[in-house]
Amino acid sequence: MEGTPKQPKNCSSLLEQLVAEAREAPLGGQVADYIPALAEVAAEHVGIAVVELDGTTHTAGDFDVCFSIQSISKIFGLALAMERAGDSLWERVRMEPSGQAFNSVVQLEWEHGIPRNPFINAGAIVVSDVLTSRYSASKSALIQYIRYLAGTESVHTNHEVWESEKEHGNRNAALAYLMKSFGNIEADVPAVLDHYFFQCSVEMNCLQLAQSLGFLANKGIQPGTEERICDARSAHRINALLSTSGMYDQSGEFAFTVGLPAKSGVGGGIVAVVPDYGVIAAWSPPLNRFGNPTRAVQMVTEFAQRLGLSVYH
Amino acid sequence: MEGTPKQPKNCSSLLEQLVAEAREAPLGGQVADYIPALAEVAAEHVGIAVVELDGTTHTAGDFDVCFSIQSISKIFGLALAMERAGDSLWERVRMEPSGQAFNSVVQLEWEHGIPRNPFINAGAIVVSDVLTSRYSASKSALIQYIRYLAGTESVHTNHEVWESEKEHGNRNAALAYLMKSFGNIEADVPAVLDHYFFQCSVEMNCLQLAQSLGFLANKGIQPGTEERICDARSAHRINALLSTSGMYDQSGEFAFTVGLPAKSGVGGGIVAVVPDYGVIAAWSPPLNRFGNPTRAVQMVTEFAQRLGLSVYH
Amino acid sequence: MEGTPKQPKNCSSLLEQLVAEAREAPLGGQVADYIPALAEVAAEHVGIAVVELDGTTHTAGDFDVCFSIQSISKIFGLALAMERAGDSLWERVRMEPSGQAFNSVVQLEWEHGIPRNPFINAGAIVVSDVLTSRYSASKSALIQYIRYLAGTESVHTNHEVWESEKEHGNRNAALAYLMKSFGNIEADVPAVLDHYFFQCSVEMNCLQLAQSLGFLANKGIQPGTEERICDARSAHRINALLSTSGMYDQSGEFAFTVGLPAKSGVGGGIVAVVPDYGVIAAWSPPLNRFGNPTRAVQMVTEFAQRLGLSVYH
Amino acid sequence: MEGTPKQPKNCSSLLEQLVAEAREAPLGGQVADYIPALAEVAAEHVGIAVVELDGTTHTAGDFDVCFSIQSISKIFGLALAMERAGDSLWERVRMEPSGQAFNSVVQLEWEHGIPRNPFINAGAIVVSDVLTSRYSASKSALIQYIRYLAGTESVHTNHEVWESEKEHGNRNAALAYLMKSFGNIEADVPAVLDHYFFQCSVEMNCLQLAQSLGFLANKGIQPGTEERICDARSAHRINALLSTSGMYDQSGEFAFTVGLPAKSGVGGGIVAVVPDYGVIAAWSPPLNRFGNPTRAVQMVTEFAQRLGLSVYH
Repeated sequence: MEGTPKQPKNCSSLLEQLVAEAREAPLGGQVADYIPALAEVAAEHVGIAVVELDGTTHTAGDFDVCFSIQSISKIFGLALAMERAGDSLWERVRMEPSGQAFNSVVQLEWEHGIPRNPFINAGAIVVSDVLTSRYSASKSALIQYIRYLAGTESVHTNHEVWESEKEHGNRNAALAYLMKSFGNIEADVPAVLDHYFFQCSVEMNCLQLAQSLGFLANKGIQPGTEERICDARSAHRINALLSTSGMYDQSGEFAFTVGLPAKSGVGGGIVAVVPDYGVIAAWSPPLNRFGNPTRAVQMVTEFAQRLGLSVYH
Repeated sequence: MEGTPKQPKNCSSLLEQLVAEAREAPLGGQVADYIPALAEVAAEHVGIAVVELDGTTHTAGDFDVCFSIQSISKIFGLALAMERAGDSLWERVRMEPSGQAFNSVVQLEWEHGIPRNPFINAGAIVVSDVLTSRYSASKSALIQYIRYLAGTESVHTNHEVWESEKEHGNRNAALAYLMKSFGNIEADVPAVLDHYFFQCSVEMNCLQLAQSLGFLANKGIQPGTEERICDARSAHRINALLSTSGMYDQSGEFAFTVGLPAKSGVGGGIVAVVPDYGVIAAWSPPLNRFGNPTRAVQMVTEFAQRLGLSVYH
Repeated sequence: MEGTPKQPKNCSSLLEQLVAEAREAPLGGQVADYIPALAEVAAEHVGIAVVELDGTTHTAGDFDVCFSIQSISKIFGLALAMERAGDSLWERVRMEPSGQAFNSVVQLEWEHGIPRNPFINAGAIVVSDVLTSRYSASKSALIQYIRYLAGTESVHTNHEVWESEKEHGNRNAALAYLMKSFGNIEADVPAVLDHYFFQCSVEMNCLQLAQSLGFLANKGIQPGTEERICDARSAHRINALLSTSGMYDQSGEFAFTVGLPAKSGVGGGIVAVVPDYGVIAAWSPPLNRFGNPTRAVQMVTEFAQRLGLSVYH
Repeated sequence: MEGTPKQPKNCSSLLEQLVAEAREAPLGGQVADYIPALAEVAAEHVGIAVVELDGTTHTAGDFDVCFSIQSISKIFGLALAMERAGDSLWERVRMEPSGQAFNSVVQLEWEHGIPRNPFINAGAIVVSDVLTSRYSASKSALIQYIRYLAGTESVHTNHEVWESEKEHGNRNAALAYLMKSFGNIEADVPAVLDHYFFQCSVEMNCLQLAQSLGFLANKGIQPGTEERICDARSAHRINALLSTSGMYDQSGEFAFTVGLPAKSGVGGGIVAVVPDYGVIAAWSPPLNRFGNPTRAVQMVTEFAQRLGLSVYH
């Protein structure tokens, strides 16, 4: 955290080294297996990409292999919904850390159908409801938004995963109907869930992810195109939410050890935003007991500590 | 958050303005009244102090009036316990946001007597147990530590408050006995509570608070004396914990709107750490429904936004 | 409870008196209004019927006006499912009082999708799943079973209520999907809910209700026809469940003050089983804060106390 | 439950047979070991006593060996407190089944310090507070009351157990302080706990237990002495509470399979009240996972079923 040069010449070789170390490390858990399409992914994949604000790019390992971004997609959904719904969104979802397993219905019941934040499933379902209600074709709007951010047309949803998520989505259906009973879902629940599972099933690779989220490290302006994606306040807010709530029930520990806004997904991916520097994206499928990808988290941790990137200094 | 000069010449006059605005604003809640000694404090007090790393100091209002620092003392207790207990502390208290009211016993029961973080009451009681168990005179050790950090002998505990806290401390006693039943309290509960309530009853003013916590903004080294208080990693960790858990069940919202490590107390005080810049301390007794001092929070928010101080940019 | 003759000659006049008193008493709450079809029912209705094992029948007030039996139907569903599923039913639903509001999802989550008893909504949904899975036409089977027990073809489901329940059944859908996610629902959730809401929408009058449940007071044999409806053990079990769990979160109080197996419904009905004596059924739409019909409960209480009917003596 | 003669000539030989079967059955669990004095009790003990209202007594096995009655003492405490406090007691403790583990603090927190019933620990601590507050010497008053009911001076508290309970009573202390924080404990917590643990540490044998509680089966009048212990309504209420809440989180199952008001204790004892018949008391130390004595429960079950004693028929 101190005395380390911010950008060593060997940034790319550092990534190579981290990937090599990760490949030798224990898998650190199990690949998500609640749906067959995810369970089939090879546990051995390891990739990482770092995209700096000036466009400098560092990559290593399977950085260009697409994977299911799963909950990382909650960032895209949220950014789009914040633009469409404005501050009224925060009457329907709070901005507080959840302090519980990411899919628990208990807290939702206690708090009368208002999810604690947009990165737990219930909160992302409210976000999906906003998009479903405000777009005539919300799934198409979302995928186009992601493609626009990533600067490529080659981002797709995996239809097999999408169908499979719907089949195994009973707990998310329970969350949605519970919120509906509290009046916090506007559209029909099946339509909302259809959007939600579509969103979860988007596939991207590390490089695309790191490129697409540069605006969060740059006060709302996408590096490269210099287009304003959102205002600085919104970028700040998303980073704050990622810092307190992006890593499931390990969010506090990630702040404690790494100190960066970040979001993981059960597909094994993780993205971390470094304000004024750039974005790190890493991937390795096996998950620890919190649902975070063990080796991908380890690579991001190592990289951030070596370069002294924590926002908490 | 963007384009604002970091240190305008009018920093002191900004503080004057914030105090003037606060004095005209509604009280924003009730002064803590669970013990008579706190209920007697005049609701009208408003003070603020900012101490920069180079020693530059700005103050306004009742910055030199002492008040009960209450939960802000949890920072001092934690810093001292981290030094004494090392990493073993984190087996007895977690580092995760709590997601619940600050004194709830429910989560403690679910999580088998391990508090979620050191800034909720249960966590601070574990910290008090560490100090009670490891010092022959833990209360004396703590007050001397605070005096050392504040650079003054004139920091004291209010004995009336201390006694009163003990008399009205049944809920904290319940937390302590519950943790004892799970084996997570070593010393005798009454001794641990005695230390805990002593710690809560320390009185300081805004200027002393801002001066005493400079090391958190400076990688562990106290500005002025240049003495190392803790290693950089520990300072980082405390800042991370403050960021996710320092403001009760409004911690997420504070990150969202302000973006600084901070801790409030029911005596009406709040401190915010600005890494590489300094420390802000403010005071105004009336509390909002989350137990945070409405007008003091508002002053810190305004100051941080005007100067673009958020760590999340 | 003591010294009262078991069957005063004036049993019918006692019922007349109870109805008269009920009509003069305050309404004691609100008519259920979560669906329009229930909200329209006139609050002033008051009826009661007592059918003894020897066929002696006493009635007063609106004893012959049909109303929505709602949760009272859970008895019929359970009796039928016990017959079809045998003891395996008790692996999917427990027999313990719930200690919580009748539709809470919290306990279901804690106890991994196994409802505490068949008289809370979640438990009745499991029962509905058993019937849906084991009958090719479960709704038809159920209504025929009720008609058989009541000894009349003129028992029907109110289709307007049925549709309305489905429209407003989001919380029950949440319970069903949550149990499905735990593997405790076999059939498709919409089919199970369709049966469940059909069952809730059955309409009967007090006399029909009292006649239909005589077998519970008679060790499984229906008085009059002398046909065995279930074995004595099953009748005992249903009575035990009604005694500990039939009156929502007022079950303990009902045992304490009345001491009879009983079940209420939000349509304003209540039935109480008096072993070796007969069945009492009463109706008055306004509900107290526990969801029990205030004046109907009062009539049953008064009747049982005057005649010394409590099973706890 | 049907067709069985109420009092077979071989009642005593039935008890002998039940004891013999119990001695051959598996222990069915562990002896309570949270305090050394209980852990030392020989697991092999098996005893049973039945005292009928006319004084007829049947016994078998270790019916005359004293054991720690533990939670069975809650009946004596409650009966005495009901007499002293009248109906005001029910403003401080409810009469509803708890639906949770017998010592959970969660429900107490939710329900603002009002325990669900007098047979969970929290409820019995409120009862102890009533006795502590209303008697100058509550422990003496209680033991004299028990001796009076049992008709013998030879009932004592085991001082070793009493001290040991206090040493290991942190969870009960947590419950007491939590209720104190809600204003539901009047006396000093240590004094209340002292009474509570004294009460738990009373020792009796099966025969004494069965004799002492005859008034519950006899509308408040003690058989033999024919003295009125309480009014019929109070006896009814205690039976009702025992029926819904006397057997921890197995109360529903006990109603379902046996159908008698009953109370167990972690010392291995159980008493069951048979209205208009008498009292059954059994003892065997090993406990099942609910904290109920496996073999003692089995003997009571068998006896009640053979004689058709269930109140639910």
